[in-house]
Amino acid sequence: MFKNRVAKVREVLKKKKLDCLLITSLPNLRYLSGFSGSSGALLINRDDGYFLADSRYYSQARKETKGFIIREYRKIIEGIAELSRAAGMKRMGFEAGDLTYKDYQKLQELLAKVKLLPFSKELDSLRAVKDRDEINSIKNAARIAAQCFLELKDTIQPGSRERNLAIELEYKLKKGGSGELPFDIIVASGPRGALPHGVASEKKIRNGEMVVIDYGSRYKGYFSDETCTLLMGIPTRKQKNIYQIVKAAHDKAIDFIRPGKRASQIDKVAREYIRQAGYSRGFGHALGHGVGLAIHEEPLISPDSSTLIEEGMVFTIEPGIYLEGWGGVRIEDMIVVTRDGCKVLTQVSKEMECCSPPVLKG
Amino acid sequence: MFKNRVAKVREVLKKKKLDCLLITSLPNLRYLSGFSGSSGALLINRDDGYFLADSRYYSQARKETKGFIIREYRKIIEGIAELSRAAGMKRMGFEAGDLTYKDYQKLQELLAKVKLLPFSKELDSLRAVKDRDEINSIKNAARIAAQCFLELKDTIQPGSRERNLAIELEYKLKKGGSGELPFDIIVASGPRGALPHGVASEKKIRNGEMVVIDYGSRYKGYFSDETCTLLMGIPTRKQKNIYQIVKAAHDKAIDFIRPGKRASQIDKVAREYIRQAGYSRGFGHALGHGVGLAIHEEPLISPDSSTLIEEGMVFTIEPGIYLEGWGGVRIEDMIVVTRDGCKVLTQVSKEMECCSPPVLKG
Repeated sequence: MFKNRVAKVREVLKKKKLDCLLITSLPNLRYLSGFSGSSGALLINRDDGYFLADSRYYSQARKETKGFIIREYRKIIEGIAELSRAAGMKRMGFEAGDLTYKDYQKLQELLAKVKLLPFSKELDSLRAVKDRDEINSIKNAARIAAQCFLELKDTIQPGSRERNLAIELEYKLKKGGSGELPFDIIVASGPRGALPHGVASEKKIRNGEMVVIDYGSRYKGYFSDETCTLLMGIPTRKQKNIYQIVKAAHDKAIDFIRPGKRASQIDKVAREYIRQAGYSRGFGHALGHGVGLAIHEEPLISPDSSTLIEEGMVFTIEPGIYLEGWGGVRIEDMIVVTRDGCKVLTQVSKEMECCSPPVLKG
Repeated sequence: MFKNRVAKVREVLKKKKLDCLLITSLPNLRYLSGFSGSSGALLINRDDGYFLADSRYYSQARKETKGFIIREYRKIIEGIAELSRAAGMKRMGFEAGDLTYKDYQKLQELLAKVKLLPFSKELDSLRAVKDRDEINSIKNAARIAAQCFLELKDTIQPGSRERNLAIELEYKLKKGGSGELPFDIIVASGPRGALPHGVASEKKIRNGEMVVIDYGSRYKGYFSDETCTLLMGIPTRKQKNIYQIVKAAHDKAIDFIRPGKRASQIDKVAREYIRQAGYSRGFGHALGHGVGLAIHEEPLISPDSSTLIEEGMVFTIEPGIYLEGWGGVRIEDMIVVTRDGCKVLTQVSKEMECCSPPVLKG
């Protein structure tokens, strides 16, 4: 598995006439070598692959990676420089979207005679198509997320504080087997729902409000990402109407997905629907994004994205309508592209659901 | 407060003959403007300051920041470029340790006639000396951490799983008022204690083992960082001996701290003590690091660091001895430098403590 992935990197190497490619981003390190630590580097040349680890991660690298020569370093940039000098590298590609300018500058200083070439697109698309094992990990992450969310949902009532719900959900997710969460859980109720990234606050949820909950989980390195919007009590006509518009936009986009479509076309299906319903100004963000070892990766599903959709790609579909002062609705599922369509990987139903406040007795 | 901080940035600006300085790192954004979101940029020129926010953060930026002209952008690099062009900037400094090479490249492409100058040291030291409010926030973070750790400690016994302890501690911290934790809590028992960054695993703690627990908290943006090493049951002579060596190294370093010393001298006090005790190979990392809005910031307390210690600096003192196959001991406190010494900010006692397993009845 790792061999095939490294072979793909070697193709880039040859095509770009490089001696070696330096990999520093954690998702690509994990994808190409299996290493799950939080710091390291891979140097892949035409024949060999070197994994560079510091003393904290040396034994972990030995255990997790296969097929690489493992070298220990004290300072990463110095370690890379030393190794490349020893191997006589002249043209080195690097991950331009990961290396800071400062590290680039330091590396160039130490390797004055080496041509450093920035790469991004070629590597961004490396992980876009998932294999069966990867899809299974994502499914497992989504399963943990669904289980925990449904448990949490039963406890939500008017008076619940957003932040407490986020803390409880995180606790359930971790106990349920999730690794590090992909992002701070969003719980945005009432007018706060108009903030697409409304991190859970001290606000109490009130009867009659909508509550946007965006949460993710992690299994064997792979993330899940999902958003539910709940209704507290009896919905107003406007709440119902906006929910149904977002839900229809979501469904139509999912129905449209199949290999050969462009990402921008998928985005357009949902965006046009929302526009025609009169809410174009309420939907500002992209329709979706790839998910895997990173929470945001290729393919981006946006108006500008010309990416051609392929079987095995995994991404979110998450239209929303946000109205300042009123609130918001977002509905998000993750799908995997199949031979002739797609399959939804997330498990929580997105039908409109009203959490009626419990009737007080006496 | 923010005014004085921005004034310091303007001094750098003048000294380096720049038209403006671009700030993109989250800790510096927060330090200079109060903005607590996860994306944005500041452009500070000689007379004005601009805060750039995307649609997600526009209203938050308006609420949190003061004294800046707020501009909304769709894509951050494009937004910065447009603003600098409109303001006629010719020489722009940027945070070299934060901007990726890719963003730098894009910015330079859009601003072909602007000279972009990388900055790091001048900005790294900006936050090193803390004011009273900052120290209070750090104290509060340390207070939450101590309270939660002591609660957790009472529950630890042979058979406890490392990962479960980490999950429980995180849950307590969040419920106790901590924001996002600075790092995954480390719980490393027995031989795993030899990994300075041994993230909590599925391993069960056994009687007779030592357990390294490294945890942090966050209050109003400011982090705390602390490590305790517990003994399960009756310690062996070697365990006692190594613990006492690390503890003495820790105490001696703290006694030595005062304004005017160099960071490297403080490191040396602890390192020499450990070396003379015969364990120099067991202590590989730096003695400490600054903590504030970032979990690692200036001053670094290492053999190479020539930083001059000043009143108001806050940093960790965390010597350790790690022996492969045997385990490890690390003892970490945070201190603030006072006029004639230092004060410990963390609250958990670092005296050797044996968690005796409960005596079984019957």
